[in-house]
Amino acid sequence: MLAVIMAGGSGRRFWPRSRRERPKQLIDLTGRGSMIQLTAERLSAFCSPEELFIVTVAPLADAIALEVAGKVPRAHIVEEPQGRNTAAAAVLAASIIESRFGDVPFLMVPADHVITDEAAFRADALAAERYLEKNDRLLTFGIRPSRPETGYGYIKKGAPIAAGDAGAEIFEVESFHEKPSAQKAKAYCAGGDYFWNSGLFAWRPSVILRAVEKQLPDLVSLMRPIRAHQGTEPLLFLLKPVYERVPAISIDHAVMEKADNVAVLRARFGWSDVGSWESLREIHSPDANGNVLIGEHVLLDAKDNTVFSPDRLVAVIGLSDVVIVDGGDAILVCRRDRVQQVRDAVEALERSGKTRLY
Amino acid sequence: MLAVIMAGGSGRRFWPRSRRERPKQLIDLTGRGSMIQLTAERLSAFCSPEELFIVTVAPLADAIALEVAGKVPRAHIVEEPQGRNTAAAAVLAASIIESRFGDVPFLMVPADHVITDEAAFRADALAAERYLEKNDRLLTFGIRPSRPETGYGYIKKGAPIAAGDAGAEIFEVESFHEKPSAQKAKAYCAGGDYFWNSGLFAWRPSVILRAVEKQLPDLVSLMRPIRAHQGTEPLLFLLKPVYERVPAISIDHAVMEKADNVAVLRARFGWSDVGSWESLREIHSPDANGNVLIGEHVLLDAKDNTVFSPDRLVAVIGLSDVVIVDGGDAILVCRRDRVQQVRDAVEALERSGKTRLY
Repeated sequence: MLAVIMAGGSGRRFWPRSRRERPKQLIDLTGRGSMIQLTAERLSAFCSPEELFIVTVAPLADAIALEVAGKVPRAHIVEEPQGRNTAAAAVLAASIIESRFGDVPFLMVPADHVITDEAAFRADALAAERYLEKNDRLLTFGIRPSRPETGYGYIKKGAPIAAGDAGAEIFEVESFHEKPSAQKAKAYCAGGDYFWNSGLFAWRPSVILRAVEKQLPDLVSLMRPIRAHQGTEPLLFLLKPVYERVPAISIDHAVMEKADNVAVLRARFGWSDVGSWESLREIHSPDANGNVLIGEHVLLDAKDNTVFSPDRLVAVIGLSDVVIVDGGDAILVCRRDRVQQVRDAVEALERSGKTRLY
Repeated sequence: MLAVIMAGGSGRRFWPRSRRERPKQLIDLTGRGSMIQLTAERLSAFCSPEELFIVTVAPLADAIALEVAGKVPRAHIVEEPQGRNTAAAAVLAASIIESRFGDVPFLMVPADHVITDEAAFRADALAAERYLEKNDRLLTFGIRPSRPETGYGYIKKGAPIAAGDAGAEIFEVESFHEKPSAQKAKAYCAGGDYFWNSGLFAWRPSVILRAVEKQLPDLVSLMRPIRAHQGTEPLLFLLKPVYERVPAISIDHAVMEKADNVAVLRARFGWSDVGSWESLREIHSPDANGNVLIGEHVLLDAKDNTVFSPDRLVAVIGLSDVVIVDGGDAILVCRRDRVQQVRDAVEALERSGKTRLY
């Protein structure tokens, strides 16, 4: 099966562990490897190296190549001149798949999500592939909500379309919903009609390119040289002038929320977008005192804390609901309900010109 | 003027900055040098190198010698085989001073206190020396309390004895008081009759030796070989068998609280025993938000915190009344009113055998 990993993100929410030149996809939050490494391994269970591609920004390509060595050929790590969000990356991915393999279905997955139950993931991915071979659909993977999460977008399912291979269920999409209020999230969660929008997609090149063309005709025409690219000159050279004019917009906003041929596959695997330090608590189960502890520690009267310090001991005394992260030359100590402000801290560092620290 | 610096302490309250082999006297809490270095510099303003001595435990002697190079000769750094508290150190100090200089007054000062207004300190020290030349007294330095501190012992002054040199006031001691309750501390602080017990002393060898002999005759007789020591063999060899039998007790408990010839000089200098991370707030003034910040930092919605991290940036988000200390391979995050429990954290490390970390 063909798959393209989107690995161009530049998130700041995992500072001080993540930095400009080492964003979230390159860091190890699970203790089992970097996010990109785990993503490549997960796909390698059913994709050969020849079938795996990564789209990232040029400055990250070599670091990523090291992480996925043996699983993704260096020539399959496609370098964007700069990050232009997922719509551009989707068109780029579709162009490359189309020019090399023809109009066959491929998965498009973020490099920095956590997926549990890999067998279920594989079954769902293969069911998607079978379904898309015969159907001109844009397929998203919807996650059954396990809690009233306000940090995710939601998808309301419509009528069932198909029972895919091995029991996979595919539905029409009635509507997309932005990150909801706590009250709305509760309602979404209570009924059985809403899924979390995972950001994992599958489609055939012709179908996604046609859908993008409807909404952003310029993007597709700008990318046309890529579709004809035969490898006589490096792709990056071709992309440079194109990316200067490409709009930075997500594929969700640009296409998925507007297209009339979207379908959602009810995922049977576990999923987290690992959006902030708070989501470390989804990856690692808290202990009896509610503490998630990565690294050596001493705790006295300390409950419900998240400590990520694989390389140094952390002692916590008399504190609760705090996130502590050792980032080498920088340390973060943050109230758990304020982790969204980590970005603000990084921005403060940017403003003060402390380049080495972000 | 003669002075002996007591530098054998092995405090745990400044972990993770302090360690077994680098206790508080060897660390730099002020940004101006280690505590022992500042103490030696302060005394050097009126003591020549020949007049300065340090009593410490053997394993710390070389590290201390580096800190006081040029101010205290290496031969004046007296090595105890092991720490035996201040009564033994006082007898040792008196024995050395007596054998080399005769029965002349000397200061006995801790290596790890902070003193401000060095001119006043010098004036008080010289006034003490003058006074003791003619008086068989055990002189303590009493600090006028600036707040109802419950972490210090108190001295109740009695009748004035003498107006010393340059306006120094010396009083009888009516009583010593252990660390008081908050209520008692308030009362002590409100009247003008109580001083903080600083742990700084001055006396002549004959006077302190006689006073110790009254309470602990064995200690003085055990130490008699030291009084006769003429430098033909290393003092440490002589001390080894002696220290195996010497009681570990403080000079306050053993002698000062019981002797009938104690006097207190009202200190005109500023003083802190720097007893815990909390007292960093006495050395460094908090900023407008109540934060004491040593090292690079980013603060968002953070008040009344103490951050000691000279070598790494610390970001604090949404937290108040927290102490954060970077200790290299260990990080402390502690509620400010729990800093006394830092010892417990060190004990937990000891129990778990994490030798490199304490």
